[in-house]
Amino acid sequence: MPATRSERKRDAIVEAATEIFLRSGYRGTSMDDIAAAAGVSKQTVYSHFADKEALFLDIVVSTVDETGDPVRAGVVEVADSGDLAADLVDLARRQLDQVLQPRLLQLRRLVISEAERFPTLGEVFLERGQARTGAALADAFARLGERGLLVVDDPVQAATHFNQLILAGPVNRVMFLGLVGIPKRAERDRIAEQGVRAFLAAYGPTTPR
Amino acid sequence: MPATRSERKRDAIVEAATEIFLRSGYRGTSMDDIAAAAGVSKQTVYSHFADKEALFLDIVVSTVDETGDPVRAGVVEVADSGDLAADLVDLARRQLDQVLQPRLLQLRRLVISEAERFPTLGEVFLERGQARTGAALADAFARLGERGLLVVDDPVQAATHFNQLILAGPVNRVMFLGLVGIPKRAERDRIAEQGVRAFLAAYGPTTPR
Repeated sequence: MPATRSERKRDAIVEAATEIFLRSGYRGTSMDDIAAAAGVSKQTVYSHFADKEALFLDIVVSTVDETGDPVRAGVVEVADSGDLAADLVDLARRQLDQVLQPRLLQLRRLVISEAERFPTLGEVFLERGQARTGAALADAFARLGERGLLVVDDPVQAATHFNQLILAGPVNRVMFLGLVGIPKRAERDRIAEQGVRAFLAAYGPTTPR
Repeated sequence: MPATRSERKRDAIVEAATEIFLRSGYRGTSMDDIAAAAGVSKQTVYSHFADKEALFLDIVVSTVDETGDPVRAGVVEVADSGDLAADLVDLARRQLDQVLQPRLLQLRRLVISEAERFPTLGEVFLERGQARTGAALADAFARLGERGLLVVDDPVQAATHFNQLILAGPVNRVMFLGLVGIPKRAERDRIAEQGVRAFLAAYGPTTPR
């Protein structure tokens, strides 16, 4: 089904707005700038988005969803794993590839920058991304507990620890060092392997050493 | 030894600058604003600090040092622990109390906001704080390994995992939710206890369950 004229305009607005927000920051961007960059009237921008906050929120939600949805599909599959250590490393690598996408990291920094003034943005970022993936992971770990492949009294806690062991270090580095701090493939593999090793030592039925 | 007139002026500049930076952001603050708030001439500000970046860097270094130094003293003591589980929980609680100080968290957000433009700020923040505490922790874990109380092939990796299990979750939440997201005492205790339990299950000589 081809996009309508109105849908195409909406896409152009979102695309132009994303670029300007990432370049000039949230406060440094006006609806006028966005209309000009998208090649539409300011009235058209307002016909799609009530205000700048609504437009930015839309960008946050769609970016977080687009990057997170494929990873959550992989999380569900891990519950049926036949080779847990290998499958968790594979999942960890995919999670790293997801959260380390430059556009998502830039958006994360922008949301953090504005968090004290616009806590809604931060809540949405956490809830659409991390919280949903964490819940899917907790379900998978509970199932793996039933299968005797993990020992988990508290699957939500285990999911939190898994995410912290895998994702917290590299994301934190990029927040402080900028996109040049994004780890390359070999470093991501090391983070995934070491993180899963520690996780399985903590939550596996036997310690692998 | 009483402070000289010049030292008192320098302190007044740093105090005024910290408040304005945290309120108006790095880019939203000028050396004129700082001179006015400190009640000194702009020339006096420049006689102490070459430019705005040097002044902000000074604030970052002194804040990170002041909050981190007492915690590192505690890290060194853990190497001689007679009750490792209890002492690690105690250390974790003190680390949480340190990183969750509102002024340090606000400064962290400000440094992150500017990281793409001023990576030096981010490097300094990481190196003066996290990296030094991590190195002290790695030394302590290596010593605990020699004493047979931990099993650590790679003490730096173990220190990284310890920090991630304890600090990453709450700091991340505050970055997204603002200071209202700072966990209270009971929640901090839970984070410390669960984090240390997972750490000792992964790196202790026996699993405690």
